[in-house]
Amino acid sequence: MTHLLQHINSPKDLRLLPKEDLPKLAKELRDFIIQIVATKEGHLGASLGVVELTIALHYVFNTPEDILIWDVGHQAYVHKILTERKALFDTNRQLGGLSGFPKRDESIYDAFGVGHSSTSISAALGMAIGSKLKGDFNKQHIAIIGDASIASGMAFEGLNHAGVTDANLLVILNDNAIGIDPSVGALKMYLTNVKRGTQKQDNIFEALNFNYSGPIDGHDLPKVISELERLKTVPGPKFLHLITTKGKGLKQAELDQVKYHAPGKFNAKTGDLFAKSKTILPPKFQDVFGYTIVELAKTNEKIIGITPAMPTGSSLKFMMNEFPDRAFDVGIAEQHAVTLSAGLATQGFIPFCNIYSTFLQRAYDQIIHDVAIQNLPVIFCLDRAGLVGEDGATHQGVFDLAYLRCIPNLIIFGPKDEVELRNIMYTAQLGLEHPIAIRYPRGRGRELNWKQPFSKIEIGKGETLKHGTKIAVLSIGTMANNIEDALNLLSESEQNSIAVYNMRFVKPLDEDLLHTILGTYSKVFTIEDGTIVGGFGSAVLEFAATHNYTASIKTIGIPDTFIEQGSITELQKSLNLDATSLATLLLKSL
Amino acid sequence: MTHLLQHINSPKDLRLLPKEDLPKLAKELRDFIIQIVATKEGHLGASLGVVELTIALHYVFNTPEDILIWDVGHQAYVHKILTERKALFDTNRQLGGLSGFPKRDESIYDAFGVGHSSTSISAALGMAIGSKLKGDFNKQHIAIIGDASIASGMAFEGLNHAGVTDANLLVILNDNAIGIDPSVGALKMYLTNVKRGTQKQDNIFEALNFNYSGPIDGHDLPKVISELERLKTVPGPKFLHLITTKGKGLKQAELDQVKYHAPGKFNAKTGDLFAKSKTILPPKFQDVFGYTIVELAKTNEKIIGITPAMPTGSSLKFMMNEFPDRAFDVGIAEQHAVTLSAGLATQGFIPFCNIYSTFLQRAYDQIIHDVAIQNLPVIFCLDRAGLVGEDGATHQGVFDLAYLRCIPNLIIFGPKDEVELRNIMYTAQLGLEHPIAIRYPRGRGRELNWKQPFSKIEIGKGETLKHGTKIAVLSIGTMANNIEDALNLLSESEQNSIAVYNMRFVKPLDEDLLHTILGTYSKVFTIEDGTIVGGFGSAVLEFAATHNYTASIKTIGIPDTFIEQGSITELQKSLNLDATSLATLLLKSL
Repeated sequence: MTHLLQHINSPKDLRLLPKEDLPKLAKELRDFIIQIVATKEGHLGASLGVVELTIALHYVFNTPEDILIWDVGHQAYVHKILTERKALFDTNRQLGGLSGFPKRDESIYDAFGVGHSSTSISAALGMAIGSKLKGDFNKQHIAIIGDASIASGMAFEGLNHAGVTDANLLVILNDNAIGIDPSVGALKMYLTNVKRGTQKQDNIFEALNFNYSGPIDGHDLPKVISELERLKTVPGPKFLHLITTKGKGLKQAELDQVKYHAPGKFNAKTGDLFAKSKTILPPKFQDVFGYTIVELAKTNEKIIGITPAMPTGSSLKFMMNEFPDRAFDVGIAEQHAVTLSAGLATQGFIPFCNIYSTFLQRAYDQIIHDVAIQNLPVIFCLDRAGLVGEDGATHQGVFDLAYLRCIPNLIIFGPKDEVELRNIMYTAQLGLEHPIAIRYPRGRGRELNWKQPFSKIEIGKGETLKHGTKIAVLSIGTMANNIEDALNLLSESEQNSIAVYNMRFVKPLDEDLLHTILGTYSKVFTIEDGTIVGGFGSAVLEFAATHNYTASIKTIGIPDTFIEQGSITELQKSLNLDATSLATLLLKSL
Repeated sequence: MTHLLQHINSPKDLRLLPKEDLPKLAKELRDFIIQIVATKEGHLGASLGVVELTIALHYVFNTPEDILIWDVGHQAYVHKILTERKALFDTNRQLGGLSGFPKRDESIYDAFGVGHSSTSISAALGMAIGSKLKGDFNKQHIAIIGDASIASGMAFEGLNHAGVTDANLLVILNDNAIGIDPSVGALKMYLTNVKRGTQKQDNIFEALNFNYSGPIDGHDLPKVISELERLKTVPGPKFLHLITTKGKGLKQAELDQVKYHAPGKFNAKTGDLFAKSKTILPPKFQDVFGYTIVELAKTNEKIIGITPAMPTGSSLKFMMNEFPDRAFDVGIAEQHAVTLSAGLATQGFIPFCNIYSTFLQRAYDQIIHDVAIQNLPVIFCLDRAGLVGEDGATHQGVFDLAYLRCIPNLIIFGPKDEVELRNIMYTAQLGLEHPIAIRYPRGRGRELNWKQPFSKIEIGKGETLKHGTKIAVLSIGTMANNIEDALNLLSESEQNSIAVYNMRFVKPLDEDLLHTILGTYSKVFTIEDGTIVGGFGSAVLEFAATHNYTASIKTIGIPDTFIEQGSITELQKSLNLDATSLATLLLKSL
């Protein structure tokens, strides 16, 4: 048996193959990805769905001179393997390894860095306009975008502009009817009708002045290749509608597309997921959110749940199952999610709007303009705040404290554990006079006994975790765990020197507590898992300056640089946020 | 002659009129608006275009129980006059007067505060979903949106969600083919074809599952009323396409729709604009931008200009006229504008992306994710930064320094005058290693002799404006003018005590200069026309904390609250940012 893949390192090698060998190569690529992702983890389903498309693109087009932009980018594993990164692919998403997303620094084949959805059309259009200005009329500019991503407003803005240009742009819709969770919305319904042939032919994309072709089977390599060959010669903005199956080629991944989006480790031979460990672990913060909103919604009928396309990731699906009329997946539409929440709040409802910290950047204006100016008590749950790990720079949730803190009227809370997350959710739904942002990290907490009776948290009040004689550490959110671990590395007398405060609120600050602390200690540390530029530490500096305190205040957090991928533990260590580094730092200051 | 309007204070009064009187009322309303806007200034054309529609809405629907949301909101003057605010209308946009936009605090008829575009569909959908949950099936929820605003991504997100609900939502497209400048984009072209009858009937809005009706003449009162009556009984999401003329009823306003969008003072009888003063004034910063980019583009062919729907306001139209292939109005699409710029930058172009400070909030994620992470040297020109005056809370450009400062790789510059704006534009197009945000205010500077030969500005270097013996004032941007004026109110010996620095860069800070200042002075003031929460002053506090300086540092700027409308002079006074307040403050510290 010839192994085709072992001889292919770049698209040049690929283009030497006869067409009839390509289906065999597709099979080898699927096996290769399954082998590696089964043990190293990563995004599986999306890449399995675009094996034929990726082969066809690099076969037909003259990459890297011709430009491919993979929207979102977690489907670009085949692309990476075919573009000189096969040997490195087993370092995917690891510290110092390949990024899980296309990245300009990594390869000339990665024309544009991606991670958040729906950017590809705008970026490719910019490049296509640039080529035209340079007089380069042969260069091809191709955006490959999924049906969940094309429904986001930003993609529409790109299409709307492209349609009135004569730019040499090809938008390929990879329509598999699913993002991470199944796609939603009117456009998705429309695309389904197009596929079924029940939609008339004058379609949305033609209305936007694109030359539309399709839908065609995205796994039919000869058909895809011949259509791409044809489109290469068509001038202006073009739109190719491909139908694919997410997880194609691995039975379980095709059947349970949500679970196999990023399945964790699995048996490469059978495709079966490994049985979960029997050890009882503390729950994920996500599940604490999910269980708690259901619990609260049972007694408070004003509670509404909203997620932009992350029902599984956020665990809002628990509420969508229990209260389907009161929990909404609005698709990749963060802007809409926030203003929809504002609309609901005007009518006396209590919307919990759950958005990943990094994706809330998409709705920044709506938080200011639609929620905070009107002082509407929307409850933002910022999932995956702080370091997120393997997804890397595009997904770290490290800017939220800084970009939210400057917004008037907004309350900002970081629970130190699962119990505080539950209690602040409980408190918020009792009725607040302001909007609130509750930020919590990705993954598990530490509290097995997390489901305790609710207790109200006083807004703007922190707590003293331990007294101390020499220095004070002011912690926000789960960084309290790191401080606790750091103290455990010290002697008892060293520990006795250190006071620790769980400040809870980045805004409003607990001014009474701060007056006490800054009036007592001449050495103060703040610690947060967010940027130190304008974050929680800066809030303490501002307070101290306003009130003429002269304590030495050192802010510990994420430095002013983008943080690449790695496990959260590795990243904390590299940023001196781990227990050992913190213990060393505290010791030095005693 | 009966005056109908004088007897009408609320929609209840309106509904007592026989239908045949309504056209006369429309005329009276137009005259009333023209009379007042002619002397008090404000947005003219948009409201003149919706006189009949506004009458019809309040006539047919049971406001305020039925909900009207005016997208953007500068077309809501008729609405305000008909809803108990006729007598106050001459305070429109003034300090303490009516807001120029609908505002929940101001009236129960203002169901949702607006200002930025394209929020109405999401907000109205939230309300409609809320009503359904309450079991209120009679309540009507109506979003009125222009053809420029509906092309923004956020509006698409709202439509996409609404189309799969059974919410009682009516979206009215007020199609006048113009926003502030003429509308652009493929959707606009499509709508034009619909109007001409050259577009087939299966249209975009039907594809998104809306019940579509129209297009109908929005100035034909009986027709609009009967169509609204009919739509009242149609369940689910509905879409009414109205054709109107911006500026309707005032000849000059119909003919020059851009100029009469907000024409300033004019002759109410003739409609003619007053001749411009012959006094030679310093130019607007906007025009300095416009002239300078043209000047630079003549010698640097890599320069591209991009504006999201503000060619006139930003003066990018100068370049659009001169270099139509290299300057783009992309419509109300800030997200797309930024990522399009990023795409161009990857190809070696030098995009100047000009966005109003308040609207850049719409593209926050794109700055981080598409520009800064990839460290692409896009040049952001943030127009109308700082206090903007009469547009009020929704439009103040006071958050930018805080929300931009936490972004790694980004350079942030505030020119103190026109010459510095020109020189930083010159410097940036020579080639930077990072993206840069250049923020400058709305309106005129002070420098008549602004067109001086270009000179390069060293990145990260501030300048000493004057030495002093006791205290140091660190200024950013045009606040240097306020400090200069403040010093002129002091005696010579008092002046001699005060050092003044034009810091220029919020990021990177001029560390050498700061070391000198903080090593010399024990009392330091920072001053900025942005929020003091996380802004320039906080950057100085962070620097001082990092380097163990113990100087007393006081940050002067915009407090942590939303700032309502008023003239810039009035607002500066109320915030103690005017020369007199600053002089008093400095005196006290001597």
